[in-house]
Amino acid sequence: MHPKTILRILSIVITIVSFFILICAVFSALSGEPVKVTLALAESGFLGIGFLMVMALWCYQDPRPFLTNRDGLLFVTASWVLSSLLGALPFWLSGAIPSYIDAFFETMSGFTTTGASILTDIEAMPRSLLLWRATTHWLGGMGIVVLTVAILPMLGFSALRVIEAEAPGPSVDRITPHISTTAKTLWLIYLGLTLAETLLLMLGGMSLYDAVTHAFATMATGGFSTKNASVGHFGSAYIDGVITLFMFLAGANFTLYYFALKGKPVMMLRDVEFRTYASIFLVATAVIAINLSMSGTYENLAQSLRYASFQVSSILTTTGFATADFDRWPEIAKTFLFVLMFIGGCAGSTGGGIKVVRVVALFKMAATELRYLSNPRGVYAIFMNGKALRKNVIYDTAALVFLYFLFFFISLAVISLSGVDVLTGITAVIANLGNIGPGLGKVGPTLNYAFFPWWAKLWLSLAMLVGRLEVYTVLILFSKRFWRA
Amino acid sequence: MHPKTILRILSIVITIVSFFILICAVFSALSGEPVKVTLALAESGFLGIGFLMVMALWCYQDPRPFLTNRDGLLFVTASWVLSSLLGALPFWLSGAIPSYIDAFFETMSGFTTTGASILTDIEAMPRSLLLWRATTHWLGGMGIVVLTVAILPMLGFSALRVIEAEAPGPSVDRITPHISTTAKTLWLIYLGLTLAETLLLMLGGMSLYDAVTHAFATMATGGFSTKNASVGHFGSAYIDGVITLFMFLAGANFTLYYFALKGKPVMMLRDVEFRTYASIFLVATAVIAINLSMSGTYENLAQSLRYASFQVSSILTTTGFATADFDRWPEIAKTFLFVLMFIGGCAGSTGGGIKVVRVVALFKMAATELRYLSNPRGVYAIFMNGKALRKNVIYDTAALVFLYFLFFFISLAVISLSGVDVLTGITAVIANLGNIGPGLGKVGPTLNYAFFPWWAKLWLSLAMLVGRLEVYTVLILFSKRFWRA
Repeated sequence: MHPKTILRILSIVITIVSFFILICAVFSALSGEPVKVTLALAESGFLGIGFLMVMALWCYQDPRPFLTNRDGLLFVTASWVLSSLLGALPFWLSGAIPSYIDAFFETMSGFTTTGASILTDIEAMPRSLLLWRATTHWLGGMGIVVLTVAILPMLGFSALRVIEAEAPGPSVDRITPHISTTAKTLWLIYLGLTLAETLLLMLGGMSLYDAVTHAFATMATGGFSTKNASVGHFGSAYIDGVITLFMFLAGANFTLYYFALKGKPVMMLRDVEFRTYASIFLVATAVIAINLSMSGTYENLAQSLRYASFQVSSILTTTGFATADFDRWPEIAKTFLFVLMFIGGCAGSTGGGIKVVRVVALFKMAATELRYLSNPRGVYAIFMNGKALRKNVIYDTAALVFLYFLFFFISLAVISLSGVDVLTGITAVIANLGNIGPGLGKVGPTLNYAFFPWWAKLWLSLAMLVGRLEVYTVLILFSKRFWRA
Repeated sequence: MHPKTILRILSIVITIVSFFILICAVFSALSGEPVKVTLALAESGFLGIGFLMVMALWCYQDPRPFLTNRDGLLFVTASWVLSSLLGALPFWLSGAIPSYIDAFFETMSGFTTTGASILTDIEAMPRSLLLWRATTHWLGGMGIVVLTVAILPMLGFSALRVIEAEAPGPSVDRITPHISTTAKTLWLIYLGLTLAETLLLMLGGMSLYDAVTHAFATMATGGFSTKNASVGHFGSAYIDGVITLFMFLAGANFTLYYFALKGKPVMMLRDVEFRTYASIFLVATAVIAINLSMSGTYENLAQSLRYASFQVSSILTTTGFATADFDRWPEIAKTFLFVLMFIGGCAGSTGGGIKVVRVVALFKMAATELRYLSNPRGVYAIFMNGKALRKNVIYDTAALVFLYFLFFFISLAVISLSGVDVLTGITAVIANLGNIGPGLGKVGPTLNYAFFPWWAKLWLSLAMLVGRLEVYTVLILFSKRFWRA
């Protein structure tokens, strides 16, 4: 463990976060908000920069040019926890969220792109704080650490390991030889898509402010809206369509866009994960639209398709926006959405959940086992996109998915102690662990997490982080061995 | 594929089943039940014996002394399906269950020791049919095929593979060199425990008939009672205690009893699976008892402990008896019972579910992965009871558990099409896949499965079989490759 090395790059992460808080402070001042709000933002920003510049200076002597494995794991988790602790300050100092634990929950929910909220009246919040809230999504979506690596190649750390700890997925292809170039490319694609969506939303009549905040929340698959009724507030089929499309894009592997830009768009259509992802989206949309139409929930099939595709896209990509109170939808539709909650987006996307590629890999693993059963002496390889997967990769994937389910059941037992009903408990846990946001029952899309006791909010914050950093990176910090070795 | 070889031993299985049906026919005649009922039983029994004796004669020329792998898999699944098809006849022919699909569901539920029922008034059924219903549990508990292998060593087939297909678990120890001796020993222990429980229940004031049927259902971890109110009917703390104890015993690995009889009782206390199993039982009982007591559901802690321990034992071992309507218990208790539904009994027990040993193995797998993460160059073995587990075993276990969850989610989507609410759907699927019986909501312990449409009943019957034969054995029959190769 090399605390000084870790602190040195932590200070850079925190500086970036502080920089974005200060932008919101400027926005607050320019829009003539109460001084208290502007001050809360400015104080938080300068506190972050000031305190961590001291840290940086103190650690400057340390000449280690790289992070060990364990340093990297600790650094990534610490980045996310510290960013949330700092990012919660503006909400708390301004008095907009009176409890610091609530503010921390909201910020962790932002950075992890969960989108679960404790706010009962979103529109009553100062606009600068809602901008900051949307910004946490945007920073967390592609990864604060990836951003750090991208814009500061001077760091020269062994950055690949760090990025893997933050946003792994079994197939984070190194699309360029230099990891910092890869990180930069991904961020540029992310930025480009965000700009495109902002423009398209403004064409649909949204204000610049609403367009930016919703584009931030969409591209990060976050789900925080600036409106109490979420995207449903705008009541526009065009806006619903644009957001459905961009949620779907944000849930796919970004490296496919890179290759598409490089003139290889066919790779996307040939990619097994993308094809599975698109198929799941289409099948779920079709079933739910038929169900909504036949049950008379909406007037016609077109309306049903509009609401079904939006909600399926929102849950599958783990965004969490809503244009309908799907908790009141017929049970078939609810059950299908429930199943989608466990899948999530693609590897290399900003979406959470187990990830489509893992589901595909484990499905192939199971199919291969069936072959061995009828022919024990056979030798079967597992192929993905034409390449044979090493057995170790599958093994790791299986261990991760098991740990995911184990953490799910333990969290369910913990959250149940707050006395919520079984379905609310189940969906609250998966909605936070999968970084989705809304669930069913008391945490349905029109409701919020305010009623949970403080310890349940802290546990759910942990679940968000475990989900966002894909289980291992966080849980390893709870093992004695990690600290002893 | 060697159909004649398979048919030859299938005929023996069916003869055994028929023999037990005929015993119930005799019981029916002696108790002076309506001729229709006695005839229905007798006809079914003779039909089974007659038809399959013809089969046996026809296949007698076939001299193959062993089953290939594929033969074995097909034979085991065919045994269970044929036994259920035949075992359903008495219910249907007597008119006691007017629909044959309902009768099939009930019988499959019996043989697989699920205990899910479509009966709305159990006590209105002829006693001989309820005896047959309890007998299906008892035969299915230790395994019809194991029984076949046990009492007919003359078969001389490669029986180990067959037994593994019926009741695997990663640690089916061959406790004696000859598989037929092992099978016989297991059945003797099973018989002994059943007799002991029958006697103890009679000491508590139960009639011989009630004692036998409840001992059958307990030792098989089945859950069919002869009373509408299940074991709650007797309202006796003594009977509750005896059944709690024997459910717990039935959910543990039977080979441990063999070693205990051989003078090695310490093995039980040292066995990791047994210790985990006992710990889960104690922790869940404690939490639920405290919850019941504090919520005022029962008058005092002693009452709460009595009902908590019974229900925990019933759900954890996948028996499904009830002494309380736990669907009306506070949400904490319900959530804990829900989590238990996914665990199940020990390997080598009559219980269903994922099995404790698999949960332990995967937990160790995940813990080892965490170690690799902080020290990628380390070499770590996974130990179970002091022996290193081969990586392949863990790999197979992971594939099986994944397939279990995959089948769970697919079944949930299918069952949801019947329009049941989400929680009922989730628990109905896990209660059948895990061979438990009752769930929550509309399939709670005081309710039944009668309201499901016929196709949902057939799918749930498939889920029972998939759960009982541990996924692979059944699902492989749906692969083209199995039939082509």
